Amino acid sequence: MYLSKLFVPITKDLPAEAKIKSHQLMLRTGMIKQSSAGIYSWLPLGFKVMKKIEQIVREEQNAIGAQEMLMPTIQSSEIWKESGRYNDYGEEMLRIKDRQGREMLYGPTNEELITDVFRSSVKSYKALPQILYHIQWKFRDEIRPRFGVMRCKEFFMKDAYSFDLSDEDARKSYNKMFYSYLKTFNRMGLKAIPMAADTGPIGGDLSHEFIILAETGESKIYADKNIFKIDLNQYKFNDASLQKMREDFTKIYAVTDEKYKEVDFNKNVKKENQMLTKGIEVGHIFYFSDKYSKPMNCLIDDKKGKKTSVKMGSYGIGVSRLVGAIIEANYNDNVMKWPKTISPFDAVIIPSITKNNKENLEKAEKIYSELKKQNIDVLLDDVDENMSNKFKKHDLIGTPYQIIVGLKSKGDNFEFKELNSKSEILSLSKIIKKLKK
Amino acid sequence: MYLSKLFVPITKDLPAEAKIKSHQLMLRTGMIKQSSAGIYSWLPLGFKVMKKIEQIVREEQNAIGAQEMLMPTIQSSEIWKESGRYNDYGEEMLRIKDRQGREMLYGPTNEELITDVFRSSVKSYKALPQILYHIQWKFRDEIRPRFGVMRCKEFFMKDAYSFDLSDEDARKSYNKMFYSYLKTFNRMGLKAIPMAADTGPIGGDLSHEFIILAETGESKIYADKNIFKIDLNQYKFNDASLQKMREDFTKIYAVTDEKYKEVDFNKNVKKENQMLTKGIEVGHIFYFSDKYSKPMNCLIDDKKGKKTSVKMGSYGIGVSRLVGAIIEANYNDNVMKWPKTISPFDAVIIPSITKNNKENLEKAEKIYSELKKQNIDVLLDDVDENMSNKFKKHDLIGTPYQIIVGLKSKGDNFEFKELNSKSEILSLSKIIKKLKK
Repeated sequence: MYLSKLFVPITKDLPAEAKIKSHQLMLRTGMIKQSSAGIYSWLPLGFKVMKKIEQIVREEQNAIGAQEMLMPTIQSSEIWKESGRYNDYGEEMLRIKDRQGREMLYGPTNEELITDVFRSSVKSYKALPQILYHIQWKFRDEIRPRFGVMRCKEFFMKDAYSFDLSDEDARKSYNKMFYSYLKTFNRMGLKAIPMAADTGPIGGDLSHEFIILAETGESKIYADKNIFKIDLNQYKFNDASLQKMREDFTKIYAVTDEKYKEVDFNKNVKKENQMLTKGIEVGHIFYFSDKYSKPMNCLIDDKKGKKTSVKMGSYGIGVSRLVGAIIEANYNDNVMKWPKTISPFDAVIIPSITKNNKENLEKAEKIYSELKKQNIDVLLDDVDENMSNKFKKHDLIGTPYQIIVGLKSKGDNFEFKELNSKSEILSLSKIIKKLKK
Repeated sequence: MYLSKLFVPITKDLPAEAKIKSHQLMLRTGMIKQSSAGIYSWLPLGFKVMKKIEQIVREEQNAIGAQEMLMPTIQSSEIWKESGRYNDYGEEMLRIKDRQGREMLYGPTNEELITDVFRSSVKSYKALPQILYHIQWKFRDEIRPRFGVMRCKEFFMKDAYSFDLSDEDARKSYNKMFYSYLKTFNRMGLKAIPMAADTGPIGGDLSHEFIILAETGESKIYADKNIFKIDLNQYKFNDASLQKMREDFTKIYAVTDEKYKEVDFNKNVKKENQMLTKGIEVGHIFYFSDKYSKPMNCLIDDKKGKKTSVKMGSYGIGVSRLVGAIIEANYNDNVMKWPKTISPFDAVIIPSITKNNKENLEKAEKIYSELKKQNIDVLLDDVDENMSNKFKKHDLIGTPYQIIVGLKSKGDNFEFKELNSKSEILSLSKIIKKLKK
């Protein structure tokens, strides 16, 4: 993609309404545009990043055998009355009357709807275990939307639902999802800590939230550094190993300020391992047994032919929220560096262009076609602007690798720079090798 | 995927509410489940098909240089008041009041919102031409939703918007999209006819709808058979060639019953070329110049620095509707055969299994892993059921290629069948070659 063609309305103004750095960066680089309070359009740059995050989430859901489907955004109030949550949910639920006066709503979550799908589809334990998920827009009518995509009204979320015959099986599904979440966040270059959590309006007795470290995060984190020493690769994808994994993670001290007690922290964690930082919640998993299946009459035949309420859990990842959270975790000192796996581009070519000399631009175009042939998704900054401004701009766009075509490039050798590192002069073939690694 | 694990609630009952065959098939094979009137959940089988259609649409939009983005589903009424359509739109617009009493709506289309994005982002002719698109859920509060996903309330649609400096340039963008649409439908194995159309509530003076042939279609079609003889490959992706393409297509007689006049038909089309059939609209493109940019003050500087309203067109493809339309076009005599490019699976393995003999199942599992290694997306019917029932079921699921592991298979040779054709006995390596073609 040539930058002059890319629909990316970059602005130099620091947007006044943006209080945190992810919101600022997303507006400045034209990743998003607010359409009304707490509701955003995703412009091409932001859209690309979100799609990459979505795809990693999808792959790691599929990897544990979860099946993708899609529930609608608009739901009937009927099923929410069955579960008893229609009145409980409060004003954050966007309530709608259709033209015939029927009570509808924009789904803030989907426990009821998936239970309705399941009860009409599955009758026997033989089809279990089952995990279904979808990645769909949700709406919560926040009274004070803020922090850009971090606390907005319309948001993009992966929510999965597990169905099991017994409590014991359900906990196995829970562990699979626990594992999937850690792998998902790892692939995005994030350090995620699972923490025992309250279940809130979803319900149940077992719940973890996944919190990534970011100094600007909303929650204070008190944890033992050793939690980052656990190597996920040591676990196998079987019930016993995944159970051990969850135990290994959860026995290490890590709490948010809600549960923090100084005396516990000092008792459980050696001084040199004490980590005090901030974090952002990016995922939350729940096991709530028959909380929905019982009132909604979602029954299956067990091995003896007896009807029993299916045991359910639900598992969310904030896909649009992750875009903001990843910026919070990676944007420092006016430089944003996207993790390779979710960067909008694999590399950017930055030629030094002047009105009278387009030689560098021509070289850059040759490099561009070469990289394209190698399936490298590359941005070419063909804008006629001085190099200092270009570098500032690309420090914000955040492509992790730059190929600079200017004074230092000679013949087939070009300046190659990884953001936040020193540049080196490399041949194009070596650059390609690095980019494909 | 093993069929016993796939979440596909197949039912033998002919659903009473379904009046047309696509709706019947989608309910019977568990592709969708109605959640409330005109609103559906997409279960894994239907979801897979819809995603493949979406991906083809996306690739052909990208191929003409359109850039993907995403606008939200919930919009403020303000911009619709600016364009003047808030009152015009009528009761099909789902109107919503948020918790603070603000008038919102669920977007039925996005001319206003994209114009709002554009006017705040682009100021100069230098950034033109520009085509932006998104693939997003829309809502129309149909008074009588029917025909399953063909006329439902919440539907998935690709809508693109072009922005040009002049009327002349805008018609070039229009032609690009015309070309993209023909390629898109071709890739789905559909015969699509572009027909001059009325512009309706979108507005403008130039419009075509794309209609695919299906005997059960909603519109009667009167056309010259020669329209299918035009080879799209003869055109190049430049303005002159695309203009010629549009002229070639539109000079051949093809109208729906609204515009049909017997005398014209007989005058323009030789008897032996007269085609009288039915069709389904799957795409609609519009050029409406400054209909939205003018009232919404979406101005750009032209080459002389003078402010002028940008010239716009809009271009829709019904992605969820296409799933139904493709079934209408391909489901005959109780056999559904998906076009290869959008089939939920590349092939299905159907072993003959009895309680006492699992030998065929074991063979089938070996074939399954072999095909998986070759990146072939294969379904294995591991359900213990007689072959006659299995065949009936797979006639509905519609995977175009079957590998039958039963009496006729010997050693490494298996019965291989393309739906609606005779089977042959082939070695596994030959089968793989056929599937990869």
